[in-house]
Amino acid sequence: MNLALPFTRPPHPLQVEPIVRSALEEDLGRASDITSDLVIPPDTKVSAKLVARKAGVIAGVVAAECAFSLVDSSIAFHCELPDGSPCGGGSEIAKIEGPARALLTAERVALNFVGHLSGIATATHALVSAVKGTKARIVDTRKTTPGLRPLEKYAVRCGGGFNHRFGLDDAVLIKDNHIAVAGSITEAVRRARAGTAHMTKIEVEVDTLAQLEEALSVGADTILLDNMSLDDLRRAVALSRGRALLEASGGVTLGAVRGIAETGVDYISSGSITHSAPSLDVALDL
Amino acid sequence: MNLALPFTRPPHPLQVEPIVRSALEEDLGRASDITSDLVIPPDTKVSAKLVARKAGVIAGVVAAECAFSLVDSSIAFHCELPDGSPCGGGSEIAKIEGPARALLTAERVALNFVGHLSGIATATHALVSAVKGTKARIVDTRKTTPGLRPLEKYAVRCGGGFNHRFGLDDAVLIKDNHIAVAGSITEAVRRARAGTAHMTKIEVEVDTLAQLEEALSVGADTILLDNMSLDDLRRAVALSRGRALLEASGGVTLGAVRGIAETGVDYISSGSITHSAPSLDVALDL
Amino acid sequence: MNLALPFTRPPHPLQVEPIVRSALEEDLGRASDITSDLVIPPDTKVSAKLVARKAGVIAGVVAAECAFSLVDSSIAFHCELPDGSPCGGGSEIAKIEGPARALLTAERVALNFVGHLSGIATATHALVSAVKGTKARIVDTRKTTPGLRPLEKYAVRCGGGFNHRFGLDDAVLIKDNHIAVAGSITEAVRRARAGTAHMTKIEVEVDTLAQLEEALSVGADTILLDNMSLDDLRRAVALSRGRALLEASGGVTLGAVRGIAETGVDYISSGSITHSAPSLDVALDL
Amino acid sequence: MNLALPFTRPPHPLQVEPIVRSALEEDLGRASDITSDLVIPPDTKVSAKLVARKAGVIAGVVAAECAFSLVDSSIAFHCELPDGSPCGGGSEIAKIEGPARALLTAERVALNFVGHLSGIATATHALVSAVKGTKARIVDTRKTTPGLRPLEKYAVRCGGGFNHRFGLDDAVLIKDNHIAVAGSITEAVRRARAGTAHMTKIEVEVDTLAQLEEALSVGADTILLDNMSLDDLRRAVALSRGRALLEASGGVTLGAVRGIAETGVDYISSGSITHSAPSLDVALDL
Amino acid sequence: MNLALPFTRPPHPLQVEPIVRSALEEDLGRASDITSDLVIPPDTKVSAKLVARKAGVIAGVVAAECAFSLVDSSIAFHCELPDGSPCGGGSEIAKIEGPARALLTAERVALNFVGHLSGIATATHALVSAVKGTKARIVDTRKTTPGLRPLEKYAVRCGGGFNHRFGLDDAVLIKDNHIAVAGSITEAVRRARAGTAHMTKIEVEVDTLAQLEEALSVGADTILLDNMSLDDLRRAVALSRGRALLEASGGVTLGAVRGIAETGVDYISSGSITHSAPSLDVALDL
Amino acid sequence: MNLALPFTRPPHPLQVEPIVRSALEEDLGRASDITSDLVIPPDTKVSAKLVARKAGVIAGVVAAECAFSLVDSSIAFHCELPDGSPCGGGSEIAKIEGPARALLTAERVALNFVGHLSGIATATHALVSAVKGTKARIVDTRKTTPGLRPLEKYAVRCGGGFNHRFGLDDAVLIKDNHIAVAGSITEAVRRARAGTAHMTKIEVEVDTLAQLEEALSVGADTILLDNMSLDDLRRAVALSRGRALLEASGGVTLGAVRGIAETGVDYISSGSITHSAPSLDVALDL
Repeated sequence: MNLALPFTRPPHPLQVEPIVRSALEEDLGRASDITSDLVIPPDTKVSAKLVARKAGVIAGVVAAECAFSLVDSSIAFHCELPDGSPCGGGSEIAKIEGPARALLTAERVALNFVGHLSGIATATHALVSAVKGTKARIVDTRKTTPGLRPLEKYAVRCGGGFNHRFGLDDAVLIKDNHIAVAGSITEAVRRARAGTAHMTKIEVEVDTLAQLEEALSVGADTILLDNMSLDDLRRAVALSRGRALLEASGGVTLGAVRGIAETGVDYISSGSITHSAPSLDVALDL
Repeated sequence: MNLALPFTRPPHPLQVEPIVRSALEEDLGRASDITSDLVIPPDTKVSAKLVARKAGVIAGVVAAECAFSLVDSSIAFHCELPDGSPCGGGSEIAKIEGPARALLTAERVALNFVGHLSGIATATHALVSAVKGTKARIVDTRKTTPGLRPLEKYAVRCGGGFNHRFGLDDAVLIKDNHIAVAGSITEAVRRARAGTAHMTKIEVEVDTLAQLEEALSVGADTILLDNMSLDDLRRAVALSRGRALLEASGGVTLGAVRGIAETGVDYISSGSITHSAPSLDVALDL
Repeated sequence: MNLALPFTRPPHPLQVEPIVRSALEEDLGRASDITSDLVIPPDTKVSAKLVARKAGVIAGVVAAECAFSLVDSSIAFHCELPDGSPCGGGSEIAKIEGPARALLTAERVALNFVGHLSGIATATHALVSAVKGTKARIVDTRKTTPGLRPLEKYAVRCGGGFNHRFGLDDAVLIKDNHIAVAGSITEAVRRARAGTAHMTKIEVEVDTLAQLEEALSVGADTILLDNMSLDDLRRAVALSRGRALLEASGGVTLGAVRGIAETGVDYISSGSITHSAPSLDVALDL
Repeated sequence: MNLALPFTRPPHPLQVEPIVRSALEEDLGRASDITSDLVIPPDTKVSAKLVARKAGVIAGVVAAECAFSLVDSSIAFHCELPDGSPCGGGSEIAKIEGPARALLTAERVALNFVGHLSGIATATHALVSAVKGTKARIVDTRKTTPGLRPLEKYAVRCGGGFNHRFGLDDAVLIKDNHIAVAGSITEAVRRARAGTAHMTKIEVEVDTLAQLEEALSVGADTILLDNMSLDDLRRAVALSRGRALLEASGGVTLGAVRGIAETGVDYISSGSITHSAPSLDVALDL
Repeated sequence: MNLALPFTRPPHPLQVEPIVRSALEEDLGRASDITSDLVIPPDTKVSAKLVARKAGVIAGVVAAECAFSLVDSSIAFHCELPDGSPCGGGSEIAKIEGPARALLTAERVALNFVGHLSGIATATHALVSAVKGTKARIVDTRKTTPGLRPLEKYAVRCGGGFNHRFGLDDAVLIKDNHIAVAGSITEAVRRARAGTAHMTKIEVEVDTLAQLEEALSVGADTILLDNMSLDDLRRAVALSRGRALLEASGGVTLGAVRGIAETGVDYISSGSITHSAPSLDVALDL
Repeated sequence: MNLALPFTRPPHPLQVEPIVRSALEEDLGRASDITSDLVIPPDTKVSAKLVARKAGVIAGVVAAECAFSLVDSSIAFHCELPDGSPCGGGSEIAKIEGPARALLTAERVALNFVGHLSGIATATHALVSAVKGTKARIVDTRKTTPGLRPLEKYAVRCGGGFNHRFGLDDAVLIKDNHIAVAGSITEAVRRARAGTAHMTKIEVEVDTLAQLEEALSVGADTILLDNMSLDDLRRAVALSRGRALLEASGGVTLGAVRGIAETGVDYISSGSITHSAPSLDVALDL
C-alpha cells in the first residue's frame, strides 16, 4: 500500500529550498567539509543507497533530494520510496550517485531531514492505523519544532494525518483564556465573527457539556473538546447532532486513541506526533 | 543542585534572536494572532506562570524570554528556574506579566522552545546521571534538528553533557568511507594533517582493534570506537594507554550506558539525546 | 465616527517593521540622505505635522510611525488620527518632533506608506458606505501589490472592509480551470475535502445557476458568483436558502455595488480597492 | 510602433528575482497552493495566453516570466509583446505552456506584476503622448510603492518617461525646508557642493522667480519650479537662458501637461504616474 | 585640526548595523565566544581604551560603537576622537566600560573595522595633504572591498577625499570598450543621453587629446583623462577651458600626485586608497 | 610549480555564492549598469582575458567565475591559472566569452575579488617562501576584513599558509585579559577544560618563560609566544620539548620571519597577510 496519494502534497520547492539551504549552511560553517575536502580526491565517484534501518513511514525525501542537489547539482538522485510510503527495516529509499566528496558533505543534513520527518510520519501513521474504520481523522497542532512547521505538517500528511491551523492567522481558535477575558463564549464568538469574513473558520475550546451547548448555539464551526472523559465525548457527539465538527484533544496515546475515535468525534488532535516522535533510523550506505 | 554552572553557556543573543524571530514570523503568518486581536481588548493585562508539568531539566528559557520580549517589549519576565536547573512536575519556571494579547500571541512559540530543548536536556541528564562516578563524559553528535543546532547543543550542555563538533568545518572526523577512499587510516590522517594547522583536532573512527592500533600510531587526537562490544572497548582502553582520547558510540541506551562508561572510555556519544528526546511537558498558566 | 474598532487590527510590529526597514533601505541606497546630511546641522530640531490634503480614511500611520522611529528613535510621534479614522482635507494626522535631518530622511517613505494605504482604505470605505443598510460585506482579493499584502489587507479593514484569503494556502478556492481539469464541481470538491481538515473552508466559483446547484449539493462552504447579472444574483440567493455563503464578484463599481448588495448576497469582492485605488494626498508640514 | 528601445532597460535579473521570489513566498504562505495541489493531477499539462483586456502600454512581462520560471523551470514562456509595447484590448502578451498546477500557482503573482506595472507605463505614456512635439520630457519622482522602486521606475521608462533620482543618495535635491534651515539657497548650495564631487548633480526647488535667480547665480545644475503658474514658468524659461535644466512640478494632470510643456521647460515630473495609476486589466486565459 | 566637518557623513545606522551584525555573526559562529564565556564570570566589569598605535586619520569608530552596542547594550562607549580626526601613536580614540565578557567578545570585530577604515582614511589623507593648495580634489573609485563600499567610501571622506560613483547605476561612465562597441564617443554619448534624464551625469574616459576634443564637443559633464603624461594633462586643461570637469587617473602615487594636481585638473582618482591601504594599528587596552 | 594542492580547498559554492551575489547587488544598486545597457546592443558578443599585471600568487578565481555566471549564465569561463598558482606580470588567468554587456557589468566585482584575494595569497606566499626549509608553518589570524573571512582564509591557503581559528567559537584562546580575570593560567585552563570536550583545542598566550612553564604544566595544546625575542623563542622551544605546539606572533615582517622560524617554533602567525596586503593588479582585457 502506498500512502502517498492524495495525502502528500509537499510544500513548494520555493518553500523547501530555503530551509534545506539554511541547514547546509549551518553544517558547513565557515570552512566547508574539511575532512572530505582533504582526504578525498575531487574526481572520486561513488554510488550510495539511502536505506531505512527500521520499519515506518517515509517522509522528507524531497528535502534530502534538495540537499544533495544544492551541494552538487551533478548528483543523480533516484527515489525508490516516495514520501508517504511505508518501509521495512532495510528498505531502500533512494539510489544516489555522484562525487564522493559531495555525497559525504550532504549526507548528515539529508539524513537529519529524513530521520526527523519520517519519525513524525511513522508516529502519525500509528494513530491513523489505530482508528481505522472509524470516521475520526488524526490532526496535528501548532506544537511543532520552530522553523520546520511546513515540513512537519507535511510529514503528518505523509503519515495519513490531516493539518489543523498552520499559524495564529489562518483560523480563529478561542481558548479558555480568551473566553475568560471576553466574559462568555457567546461574546467571544460574536467579536471574532465581527472581524472575520467568509473564509475563516471559528473553533471554540470547551471543557464541559454546558459550554458545548453554548458554543453550538452561537454557531461555532468547530468545537474542541478538551480532555473530556469518553462518556462526555459520547454525550457531546449526541448533543451536537452534526451542528459542528467535533475535535477531541488530550490524553491521545496509542492505547487510548481508538476508544476516543469510537465515541464518534470527527477529529482527534495530537501534539506528540510532532513534538515527541523519535527519529526513524535511516542511513546512507556507500 | 543547580546544574547551570559551568556547563551552560547560552549562545549569544545575536545568535538566539534570529531563530526566535523566525519562529514567531512562522506562527504569525500574514495576519497576526487574529483570535487574540479580535477577542481581547488591547489594554487587558494578565500575569502568568510558566510551569513544568513533568520532572526534568530545564533548557530554553532564554529563547522563551526572547520570544515574549520580541512580541512586546513591555512584558516583564522573571525567571525562577534558569536553564540547567532540575525541575519537578509543577515547578514554576518563570513569572510573566504584561498585555494579555501579547502573552497569548507569544505563548506557543515560547512553549515550543522550552518543551523541545528541555526534552533534550532531560534526556542528556539521564545519561549523565547514569555514568556518574565514572570518568566518561556524554557528548552529542551532528544528528540535530535542522536550524536548531546551536540551541540543541546548548540544551545538551544544560543537561550536563558536552559538545562534539558543531559542523563539518571545526574538526576533522575521518570515517570508514574516507578511509576506504584514501586507502588506509595512515594515509587519510596524513592528508588531513597536511592541510590543517595547530588548532584543528583529528578524530578517526575505527571498528577493530587493529584499526585502533593504526590510528594511535599515526597520532590521531581522538578515536571513535564504533559499535564495539564491551570487551573490545576494555581492550581498546588498555591498548591506547592514554595516547588518544577514546569515544564510544553505538547502542548508547539508558540501560547500556553505565556498562560502556565502566570500560574506561573518555567520551560516550549519543544521537538520540538530540534527535529522539520527547518534549518536556510545559505550560503557561494564566 | 471612528471606524477603527473593531475592524482595524494592524499586523504585528514583527510583520510591519521588516517591510518599513526595507523601504527605508531602498530609499537610502548606499550613501544615505546626502542633501540633509550636508545642508542641515546635526543638532537642528524641528516640529512637523502629518496632514491630509484631501478627505478620506486614514491607514498606514503605524507604518509611518515605524519609519520615523527606525530612522531616529529619539523622534517623538504623537498620533491624532489613528488608522481607520475618517479625515477631511487639512486634517492633522500626527505631530512629529525631533532632529530635522531625521525627519526629512524619513519623510518620503512615511508618506508613501500613508498615501498608498489611505488610498486603499478610502476606496474601500466608499464601497462600504454605498452598501450601508444591506447585509453585504465588502471583501478584498489577492490582487494586491507584491510585498505589501499584509498591509494592504489591513488598509481594507481600516476602510471597513473584510479580508478574503491571504494566500494560496489558507483556504480552497476552486475556479473554472480547476473544475475543467477535475471534470466536475462534485469531483473537485471531493478531492479538496479528502485532503483538508476541519479548519479549512472550501469555496467554489460558479458562472451559472446550474453550477450553483451542484456546488450547494456537495456542501461548498462559500460560493463565488462570478460576473452574474442582478437577476441571476437574486435567483442565486433564493436558490441557496442560506445553505452556503454567497460572494458576488465582477463589475463592482461604486455605481453598481448597491444594486449588487440589494440582491441579498453576503459578500461582494473587489480587486480595484487594492490594485487601482489612487493614493490619498498626504504631506509633512514643518 | 514599439516603444521598447531605447527607453526600456529592465533591472538586472539579480535585482528582479528577489522581488518576484518574495511575492511568490507571500502568496504560497506555509502550505503552498492547496487548491491546485489537491484538485489537479501532477501530470496535467496546459497551454495559456497572457492577454490584455484593455488598451495601454505593457510593462512587467520580465517579472511575470520570472514568476513562472521560479514556480516551475519547465514552463515555456514565449513573449509576444515585450515590455514597452503598446497593446489593445485583447492583445496577446505571451504564450505559456507547462504543468497546469504550476501555471495556476504562479498566475496571480504574475498578473499582479504585469497589471500594476503596465498601469504605470500606460499612465506615463498618456503624459508622454500629450507633450509630443515639445522638448519636455516626463520624469517620475520618489513617490513609489515601497519595495518596488526599481520596477516602477522601469515601468516609467517602458511608458516613454525618464527617471528622476532613485533615492536619497544619488543626487542632491535642496527643498524649501533645507533652504530654511541653511538660511539661503546660496548657503545651501555651497554646503552641498563642498561635500559632493563631480558625479553628483545638485537640484534646487524654487517657488519664486527671485529664488530662481539666486539658484541660477550659484550654479545649480537643475532647478525645480514648484507649482508655478504658466506665466511664471514662461518667465522662468526666459530668465534662465539655458543656464540650468528646468523641471516643472505640481498640478501635472493629463489636461494641463501640454500647457506646461509649451512653456519651454525641460522636464515635467509627476508623482501620480507611480502612486495613483490604476492597474491595467490583464488575464491568463487557459 | 579636526577633519570631520563637513566631509564626514557616516552612512545611516540602518546601513551600518547590518554590516556590523553580519561581521559579529561571522566571528561568533555557532557557539559564541567560548573562551570568554568559560573563563570570565558574567558579572566581571572592566574599563578599556581604544587606542591608536600609529599616527593617521581615524575612521570606523561608528562601526566599532555599533559592534559593542550589538554585543551588549549596557556597554558605555565614550568617543574621544570622532571619525575624521587625525591621531598620533598612542592617541586614545574611545573609552569603553562594561561587562568583561562582552568587551572581549566584541573586541576583534570592532578593531577590524577601525583598523581597516582608518587605514583607508590615512592613505586618503596622505594624498589630500600632498595636493594642498591646488584645486585638485582626491576621489575614490569602485575598486573597493566587496560588501564594504558604503563604509570604505565614508572612510575616504573621513580622510578628506571625495566620492566618485557608488555603483554602476548612479552615473554614466563611458570607457574605451563602450566607445569601441558604439563606434565613437559621439555616438556613445548620444545613446547615453537619450536614456537618462537631468539628474544623471555622463563621464567619458579618453586616452588622447583628440578624444578629449570630441568628448567636449558632445557636452560630456566630466572627462576622465586616463594615464596621460603631465604634459598632456596640462594641454587637456588648456583645451577644455572649463567646458567640463577633468579627472586624472593612473599612476597616482604619493610621489606623483602633486605634479598631477599642478597641471590644473579638477579631480584625481585613486584605487589604491581603497584596495591597497594597509590597516592602521589600533588596539583595545584594558 | 603549482601550489594548489593540497592547500587550496575553496569554500563550498553555497558559501561563496551569497558573498558574490551580495557584492554584485552592491554594485548594481537600484538601476543596473546604466552605461552598458544604454550604449551596448544586447546581442554584442566579446571575448576577454583576465590577466595579472604583476607577479604573485592567484586566489579568488572561483569568486570571479561565480560573478560572471551570476550576471549571465551564458558566459563561458575557462580558467587557465587556478587558485594557488603563481603568476608573472602578463600571465593569463582565464578566458571569458559572452555578451559584452554582461562581461562589463561583472568586470569590476570579479576584479575586486581576484585582486584582493590574490594580494593576500601573494603576501602569504612571500612569508612561506622565506621560511622554506624550516619546520615553521605560516598561519593567519582573525584580523580579516568583515564579511570575507572564509574567502580570505582560503586565500591564505592558496598562498601556502595555514588557518588559525575561524572564529570565537571553534577553539579556546586564553589571552592576557582572560588570565588576569581568572587569576592564573592554571585556573583559566581548568575552567576552559571543564566546559569543552575532546574536539576543542586550548591555546594559551604567554609573554614570559615562566608563564610558558605554567601553561605546559597544565597541558595546553598550543602556546602562543607573544612578542618574544629570538633568544626567548629559542629558550621556549628548548623548554617545551614538544609537550605543546608553539606559535610565535608579533613583529612578523618579511625580513624577520626566517629568524623567527629558525628558533624552532611550529607556527608563526601574521595579521598583516590579511589586513594589510596590497591588492594584486589584475585586469580584464577585451
